[in-house]
Amino acid sequence: MDAMEDMEVFTGSNPGLAPVCQVLGRGTLPGLKYRHLGKSGLKVSSIALGSLKSFSNDDSELNEEIVTLAFENGINFFDISEPFTSQKAEIELGRIIKKKGWSRRQFTVATKIYWDKTEDRALSRKEILESVKDSLENLQLDYIDLVIIHKNDSHCPLEEVVKAINFLITTGKILYWGTAKWSPVEIFESFSIARAMNCVTPLCEYAEYHPFHREKVELYMAELYNKVGLGLITWSPVSLGLVLGTSEEQTQLVTKLAFKSGKYKVGQDANGIHEGIHVASHTVKQLEMISERFGCTLSQLLVCWSLRNNTSQVVVVSASSLEQLTSQLSSLQLLSKMNSCLLEEMDRILGNKPTRQPMVSTLQQRWTATGGVPPQ
Amino acid sequence: MDAMEDMEVFTGSNPGLAPVCQVLGRGTLPGLKYRHLGKSGLKVSSIALGSLKSFSNDDSELNEEIVTLAFENGINFFDISEPFTSQKAEIELGRIIKKKGWSRRQFTVATKIYWDKTEDRALSRKEILESVKDSLENLQLDYIDLVIIHKNDSHCPLEEVVKAINFLITTGKILYWGTAKWSPVEIFESFSIARAMNCVTPLCEYAEYHPFHREKVELYMAELYNKVGLGLITWSPVSLGLVLGTSEEQTQLVTKLAFKSGKYKVGQDANGIHEGIHVASHTVKQLEMISERFGCTLSQLLVCWSLRNNTSQVVVVSASSLEQLTSQLSSLQLLSKMNSCLLEEMDRILGNKPTRQPMVSTLQQRWTATGGVPPQ
Amino acid sequence: MDAMEDMEVFTGSNPGLAPVCQVLGRGTLPGLKYRHLGKSGLKVSSIALGSLKSFSNDDSELNEEIVTLAFENGINFFDISEPFTSQKAEIELGRIIKKKGWSRRQFTVATKIYWDKTEDRALSRKEILESVKDSLENLQLDYIDLVIIHKNDSHCPLEEVVKAINFLITTGKILYWGTAKWSPVEIFESFSIARAMNCVTPLCEYAEYHPFHREKVELYMAELYNKVGLGLITWSPVSLGLVLGTSEEQTQLVTKLAFKSGKYKVGQDANGIHEGIHVASHTVKQLEMISERFGCTLSQLLVCWSLRNNTSQVVVVSASSLEQLTSQLSSLQLLSKMNSCLLEEMDRILGNKPTRQPMVSTLQQRWTATGGVPPQ
Amino acid sequence: MDAMEDMEVFTGSNPGLAPVCQVLGRGTLPGLKYRHLGKSGLKVSSIALGSLKSFSNDDSELNEEIVTLAFENGINFFDISEPFTSQKAEIELGRIIKKKGWSRRQFTVATKIYWDKTEDRALSRKEILESVKDSLENLQLDYIDLVIIHKNDSHCPLEEVVKAINFLITTGKILYWGTAKWSPVEIFESFSIARAMNCVTPLCEYAEYHPFHREKVELYMAELYNKVGLGLITWSPVSLGLVLGTSEEQTQLVTKLAFKSGKYKVGQDANGIHEGIHVASHTVKQLEMISERFGCTLSQLLVCWSLRNNTSQVVVVSASSLEQLTSQLSSLQLLSKMNSCLLEEMDRILGNKPTRQPMVSTLQQRWTATGGVPPQ
Repeated sequence: MDAMEDMEVFTGSNPGLAPVCQVLGRGTLPGLKYRHLGKSGLKVSSIALGSLKSFSNDDSELNEEIVTLAFENGINFFDISEPFTSQKAEIELGRIIKKKGWSRRQFTVATKIYWDKTEDRALSRKEILESVKDSLENLQLDYIDLVIIHKNDSHCPLEEVVKAINFLITTGKILYWGTAKWSPVEIFESFSIARAMNCVTPLCEYAEYHPFHREKVELYMAELYNKVGLGLITWSPVSLGLVLGTSEEQTQLVTKLAFKSGKYKVGQDANGIHEGIHVASHTVKQLEMISERFGCTLSQLLVCWSLRNNTSQVVVVSASSLEQLTSQLSSLQLLSKMNSCLLEEMDRILGNKPTRQPMVSTLQQRWTATGGVPPQ
Repeated sequence: MDAMEDMEVFTGSNPGLAPVCQVLGRGTLPGLKYRHLGKSGLKVSSIALGSLKSFSNDDSELNEEIVTLAFENGINFFDISEPFTSQKAEIELGRIIKKKGWSRRQFTVATKIYWDKTEDRALSRKEILESVKDSLENLQLDYIDLVIIHKNDSHCPLEEVVKAINFLITTGKILYWGTAKWSPVEIFESFSIARAMNCVTPLCEYAEYHPFHREKVELYMAELYNKVGLGLITWSPVSLGLVLGTSEEQTQLVTKLAFKSGKYKVGQDANGIHEGIHVASHTVKQLEMISERFGCTLSQLLVCWSLRNNTSQVVVVSASSLEQLTSQLSSLQLLSKMNSCLLEEMDRILGNKPTRQPMVSTLQQRWTATGGVPPQ
Repeated sequence: MDAMEDMEVFTGSNPGLAPVCQVLGRGTLPGLKYRHLGKSGLKVSSIALGSLKSFSNDDSELNEEIVTLAFENGINFFDISEPFTSQKAEIELGRIIKKKGWSRRQFTVATKIYWDKTEDRALSRKEILESVKDSLENLQLDYIDLVIIHKNDSHCPLEEVVKAINFLITTGKILYWGTAKWSPVEIFESFSIARAMNCVTPLCEYAEYHPFHREKVELYMAELYNKVGLGLITWSPVSLGLVLGTSEEQTQLVTKLAFKSGKYKVGQDANGIHEGIHVASHTVKQLEMISERFGCTLSQLLVCWSLRNNTSQVVVVSASSLEQLTSQLSSLQLLSKMNSCLLEEMDRILGNKPTRQPMVSTLQQRWTATGGVPPQ
Repeated sequence: MDAMEDMEVFTGSNPGLAPVCQVLGRGTLPGLKYRHLGKSGLKVSSIALGSLKSFSNDDSELNEEIVTLAFENGINFFDISEPFTSQKAEIELGRIIKKKGWSRRQFTVATKIYWDKTEDRALSRKEILESVKDSLENLQLDYIDLVIIHKNDSHCPLEEVVKAINFLITTGKILYWGTAKWSPVEIFESFSIARAMNCVTPLCEYAEYHPFHREKVELYMAELYNKVGLGLITWSPVSLGLVLGTSEEQTQLVTKLAFKSGKYKVGQDANGIHEGIHVASHTVKQLEMISERFGCTLSQLLVCWSLRNNTSQVVVVSASSLEQLTSQLSSLQLLSKMNSCLLEEMDRILGNKPTRQPMVSTLQQRWTATGGVPPQ
């Protein structure tokens, strides 16, 4: 709330977004908030720096500049985001943190257990232990703040997962744990098992979220927060920097994303597919017109759209240059414009606002089956 | 009880308090007792040496003399009392203990987690772990006897607090834990959660207590001791040495304390405030007359008044010179005079003896609402 | 299932088994599967290399070649199988693993607690701790994947066993635990106690299994898998290489095995025993005829017969030369022939297919006793 | 039982006890048994070597000879028995064990927490941790097999005791724990609390037992064994070697022991006391006559009398010379003579066989109060 008061809102009409200052001493970017992740004591910045493009390339000097720019703008959450580059990203992040000498309280590091990318493709007590051991060595840290289990493995009992994670917590190797790409029921079950076995419960789900992938986040995550205190970290191909480039490249990539979401695949034949792409393309063009109205890029608009979601405590962004990062962070300045009018306009354009069917009591269904007479 | 028997009571009429001997071998100050802290096996002296004035100044030789004087008079409880000087106090205390070579069984060290003074202002598993790690390094000890969580953070689930503390206990970093400035309900809830999760329950509350701040200690803490074995450590601006100085300075500062307590703020206008100060001043003068009767200072009277409370096992005192410490410790000699007559006299002067409203059954209130007829 | 699809089935008519290729890079033997051990996340190869003959002899170069051949054919499970040679086998296996530099994720090591072979002949918290400590030193590993308690000691409370094992798990010395030669009731009781005390439950039973020792595996283990997720590792004197030798030696040893199984001991007098051996010998000859039909040896047929059992996740084999190991592994090629026809034929020859009596309610028996009238 | 079969029973008539051979390789003394301590897996010899006289004197060579003689005769249980010499005894025992290089599996070490002899006279989490830390340093061992809490401290909650002990077990510092001089109700309560908190339950009580101190052992300990698996270790001033000396000294000291037991204090006046001593002296003389009948000393008879008790798994003996130890161990040879006839004869002489009053239902007492009519 105080962060809100400090926010320098952008008030001019369509002047384009002011560039993010490259602060030298540590400051806080206007609009950046610090929120408790789930119902826990851990406070993180509302934007996290993901590793996908940020610190996995070969230019170690650039990596350091990007991480430092983020840190000095108040971002205290670094997330290892992608399986294939995670080892390199961990090593780079570890190196930078060590060199910078930041206090351990000043940053939060999250990394993932990508068991589905190992030779065995099996989640197990062993995989959990070995994976975290590797990450700790790569990062050169005493402990990892948050370990995310990437996907649930239906062949590994949740009891084994929960106990292995708890072993890591009770030996001081990690502080918190979360999930990525788990269904609400899987999350709830793991919560329930952890409770029953007196183990630490999961802290957050890590979910994809953008205008063409909305259902899980908008329909189910608030319920999990309310019921079991589960936090939410969101990412999208857009916020991870995949569409950063020229205006035309952005449009093209977002159109692909829209089409792949399934909503615009109107037919099964070649003709239908073309038609679908046409519709998707039309939708994206309308979104572009909105971004032009605000003097920002399409991807800035979409990142801001994610940031405005109240259920998500953190949006992960990424960038492969200082300019890209600055551009991503600038999205925060649009936040004050994301009022209900604009959101409704975008929902009309997207036409995919998810809704949940009203719950019907199965008891009532039985009544209907017996001619509407309730059982005595 | 045996300590009571050993006590050399002061019997002369108004001769002033005999000075505390600066014992060379370790002895026990007459009147000093050793009590179990809460319903635990840990035995501590009824006076603790707090860090506020005692060992946070720049004169390391003086610090050592003060700590040694306390130790040699039988004080075995050292408490790090104040957020802004705690790091320095921990380092000083650690240095002195190491130099002196006292056996680990001979002293008890308590320190606090001042999460509300950190950059994030957030209590969390991480903050608890980092804070204790820092304290252990500062103190150069293998473990801390008692860690106090300064204030409850309503944003951090008690489950997280209890589990993080239990982690520290089961890894041997700390032995016991307690709270400071927590409400009785918060304490009871943390006790209940610790029990349910098979974790170590809180040992004591650390509360402010002096004639102008009585309610919590006198109305609620005995109940917590009886019900859940919770101990009580008390401190006051007086016992922490803030009013040590000339007789006039003492009077002036106690008057401020009295006025700030709210009871004497009789009006909202400028005139009213003056009137309040006048009344407070009158009260303090009456207390002074009592202290004169006993040949002691006002602050000695007030420290003794705290010591006479049976619910509190420990009173924390502090001093910035050997003379001040001696003066504080001399308060013990007044204890035998703190009979019910004197306490009633002081209560009449203070006019603020707290009472608890009789409990009314809400069931009874419903009856009243329905015309006094109990539900069938 | 995918392993099944990859399997190069043997299709020629009676051409003998193709030799196992000595792969240089690591490959997977056709027919070798990777299964979760019990209902856990741990995935192991369907054939384990046991230590009995494999790596307990004096030729350290040969030991290395055998272990390497197994590993390069995809076997990732090494099992210390026999009490009297276990120390030597552990030291050899440890040496080889270290020299080869295999990643810790690539292999699983199981060893046993042979308390019944110690001076005290007592299972206890102490014996469990000391035994695992010794094994870890011998193996030069940070942890053992699976520790098996060889036999239950009725004098040691299961609570003590479960807590000692859990201590090893929570200190990171072992990952999983199992049993060998425990009765289904003992296993179930230990599972139940582990659950009640929030400890890790047993993962698998290690049982003898061959055509003349079928009852426990075929009648009880599936139920334990279904009910409490218990896995099964099987071994037999045949798969441990005891009958490897000339065709005649095989016949002779299997006949002894058959006779010792009790089924063919038809009389008590000298004459009866001879008669029993005669019958056993006849049975084994019929099995030999089947193996000739498939162009394999008798012991290959028997190993394959064990492998075809769906309840067992792993069959432990052993060998004292590369040729013997190759021969054992070749059994996998027969698996596709183990159809229901062949199994029924073998069951007819063996005449010992175990069955479980239908459960009779003791309540019903009481009815019968009261003249068939159910109690009111 | 097998130990029983191996026992070389003494069959001659009154020839005196054959001397215990000073075995060079490790052997087992005839009559020495190995029993599980309580219902646990830990197996210990039926005689333990206590430290009181055995290895607390200044002659380190003699200490080593005594410990070695005990060990080579099959005694695998060394017990630190007495508060005032325990530190020295621990250091001596540790030194000898280290020098001898015995395997950790071959011996069991028990030591005690003598909180009642410390400055604070308080049992607490801290005292338990500090005491065991000291003992481990003295003994130069990685862990202590059995830690005994000497007396219960009614001011320290059993929850604190149980959790502190469990901390030591889960950090590998100790394996088992027991009590000394606790009442059956205190033991049962600690068992019950340990169960409820999922902690390790107490293993044994350490109790005084000789012909003049029988009640606790003979009336209550069997019940605790049956109900909660609690083991029993017994000692007496006799078995701890206090009466070793000339025949006359033995008689004199046992007479004192008898008199102090209270049973023979027939009057309160000076005359009465003399009378009591006379009666006690007469009793002891009758016991002496029995020992003469068997060609043994009085103290050998009494040690054997303790050994014959089936509830006690271990009798602690002590000695300050090889001859004394040999004499104590020789008592085992008398065991076969301890038949019911002899025990009844001794009970007649002692006249103090303890009995428990029949339990009376308090319900029945109420009936009586209401005129014998049961409540409806």
